[in-house]
Amino acid sequence: MTEVVIVGAGFGGLEAAKALADAPASVNVTVIDKRNHHTFQPLLYQVATAGLNPSDIAQPIRQIIGRQPNCRVLMAEVTDVDPANRTLATTLGPIDFDYLIVATGATHAYFGNDDWERLAPGLKTVEDALDIRHRILLAFERAEASTDPSEQKRHMTFVVVGGGPTGVELAGAIREIATHTLRGQYRSIDTTESRVVLLEAGPRVLPTFAEKLSTAAADQLRSLGVDVFTSRAVTGIDDRGVDTGEGRIEASTVLWAAGVAASPLGRALSQASGVELDRSGRVKVGPSLTVPGFDNVFVIGDLAAATDAAGVTVPGVAPGAQQGGKHAVACIEADLDNRPRPEFVYFDKGSMATVGRSRAVVEIRRLRFSGFPAWVTWWLVHIWSLVGFRSRATVMAGWAWQYLTRRRDARLITNTPPLDP
Amino acid sequence: MTEVVIVGAGFGGLEAAKALADAPASVNVTVIDKRNHHTFQPLLYQVATAGLNPSDIAQPIRQIIGRQPNCRVLMAEVTDVDPANRTLATTLGPIDFDYLIVATGATHAYFGNDDWERLAPGLKTVEDALDIRHRILLAFERAEASTDPSEQKRHMTFVVVGGGPTGVELAGAIREIATHTLRGQYRSIDTTESRVVLLEAGPRVLPTFAEKLSTAAADQLRSLGVDVFTSRAVTGIDDRGVDTGEGRIEASTVLWAAGVAASPLGRALSQASGVELDRSGRVKVGPSLTVPGFDNVFVIGDLAAATDAAGVTVPGVAPGAQQGGKHAVACIEADLDNRPRPEFVYFDKGSMATVGRSRAVVEIRRLRFSGFPAWVTWWLVHIWSLVGFRSRATVMAGWAWQYLTRRRDARLITNTPPLDP
Repeated sequence: MTEVVIVGAGFGGLEAAKALADAPASVNVTVIDKRNHHTFQPLLYQVATAGLNPSDIAQPIRQIIGRQPNCRVLMAEVTDVDPANRTLATTLGPIDFDYLIVATGATHAYFGNDDWERLAPGLKTVEDALDIRHRILLAFERAEASTDPSEQKRHMTFVVVGGGPTGVELAGAIREIATHTLRGQYRSIDTTESRVVLLEAGPRVLPTFAEKLSTAAADQLRSLGVDVFTSRAVTGIDDRGVDTGEGRIEASTVLWAAGVAASPLGRALSQASGVELDRSGRVKVGPSLTVPGFDNVFVIGDLAAATDAAGVTVPGVAPGAQQGGKHAVACIEADLDNRPRPEFVYFDKGSMATVGRSRAVVEIRRLRFSGFPAWVTWWLVHIWSLVGFRSRATVMAGWAWQYLTRRRDARLITNTPPLDP
Repeated sequence: MTEVVIVGAGFGGLEAAKALADAPASVNVTVIDKRNHHTFQPLLYQVATAGLNPSDIAQPIRQIIGRQPNCRVLMAEVTDVDPANRTLATTLGPIDFDYLIVATGATHAYFGNDDWERLAPGLKTVEDALDIRHRILLAFERAEASTDPSEQKRHMTFVVVGGGPTGVELAGAIREIATHTLRGQYRSIDTTESRVVLLEAGPRVLPTFAEKLSTAAADQLRSLGVDVFTSRAVTGIDDRGVDTGEGRIEASTVLWAAGVAASPLGRALSQASGVELDRSGRVKVGPSLTVPGFDNVFVIGDLAAATDAAGVTVPGVAPGAQQGGKHAVACIEADLDNRPRPEFVYFDKGSMATVGRSRAVVEIRRLRFSGFPAWVTWWLVHIWSLVGFRSRATVMAGWAWQYLTRRRDARLITNTPPLDP
């Protein structure tokens, strides 16, 4: 038997597992993930802002691939990797492999300020999204319970650090909640007076997009009432606000969308195989997406620092991970057939970000547009990409309802003690 | 101004708040709840068994009554009550009242075995439901990860203690998950071999129903494959199983649906006013639902031990709480108009419980039936009763989908460390 082990059931790992459905009967597939669910990360900000439920954008891994006959799903954490002896250390004991596909993705980076993590959570998991949702909703409860105008103002100020797609989406959605969803439901405060600040250290928001789209996104955010500041780095965060090079902002809610670091399994792989890591801790794989010296060990998705056969840098987006997963499987099947392995050529499907209701930017190579047509494009692509039919139908229905009414029904605060004065 | 304070936004408190929408302009209403959401408790078991999302059955209190102009909503915990001085102690400081409606409901009772709470959670809140959902799903993950047949068997044994409606509903739903939803998604175990045991200390399940319906429910449970044992009291619970008078059951998941105790605010009210409590800690109110000596202090719903003007005992069900809320408001409005207060007469709307897909029992006074017609009745009544249109529509769509496919899409495990071997 040929044992193929996939670590991580994100976009890359799942695509690899599905591609192995038609592998020869001699192939066994094991998918290991520390969670029991796949998360559709591009829509996590909707869970964080109470528009969608966790299960709208997350699906049990077993539900997706558990009935594939050659595929076993294990809920475990991989703690170490030994490519020379072809074995993994996991919380369920050692697991051997003939081929290994590492697809454990990325997490938040606070650039050495680890104490900021508690103060300004990032958005990578369902747990993160629920934490952020609770913070946003509790801030309004605290403002309503307070009688001190400066405290009320602080509770009604939301700072989002980082102007990439996640930061832009969060800032726009919080502003929409404040101005529409919650309006009129409080007595001591007027939620439409909430302040949402987006801080970007670089010279423009959405830095990976064309410059005219950055300008469009910033304009769209400002039209929603978001205060957008570029070239403004955060120098300090505490539990009452944020310090920047140009002054302090008092805010009880600070959210982090600024830095990404590769998952720690990259470091373990580097120590065991000698493969280099880049500054973010990503594994520098060859153009075939394998670790130098170990052509049976693939690294795909956000964990890989990869350049394809044409010299194009593979970006950390879902299509990059999915294409990496398919390529790894194509190589394994070529080996089994004694054929030469194919080359990896990344196909750019474009990128997009939404700023809020009817506002978005889309860049598909030379094609660049913004506003309502971009928002419709963004919406169709994301609905279509969601895993599983039920999610697709309920997310569509939920969003249609939300669009018509501006309601957000997932506004539950759970696991929280009562407010102190 | 007349200050009406309502503590608790369950069925009774919400009904009172809504009934006060048409009160004279001189009336201010304050609704205090330690959670930000109203929970539709009759469907909590669906969240616990991954069929529904928390926000399908829970709604922000502000969403329901926050736009009612005379109504203020506070998220706080009431820690004490002083009827003589007409004031409450809360986590947000003291709050004065002219009229008080106490509707804080009930919680679990472990009859002195407080250490059982950690081992066998009950089902009263959204947090409880998510805890139970995680336990059930993790048990299957542990069984899949284990290689020891006796451990696998223990992980695949689920004991539900208590044969009232909640216990019956939980036992039936777990058996359905095991036999249909999860089937074929594991490699080391066959989930259809899971054992679900329902233990009832009394002589029959659903003891508040007519005897022929108890028999029907037990038969329906057995037809689903649930092991139903009556007259079997639990004598011990530990983290590996349950002891009964007639032997031990090894089980890694034990759920508690056996005992109900009134909320602790009843005790505070008793100490301050001298009102008597019954054995479960419920406040013994007069037929007008007021505390003797304080005709401005009403206790309604599960916290009240009440007998109506006709001598009928008011049961601890949603319609009882709602009718109590309406009665309290009618009394307050009568006082404001200088009219005599109305009498409280409880109207029995009947009771029902579901055992699973196409299985239920219904009792509406002399009318008693079971099976598919009862299930359709149960389903229509519960959909109709759900607060808010969106919940109704999505719950209907979700259930229709679940009925057709037997899928359950809310099967997420969150906030859980990876499995140990």
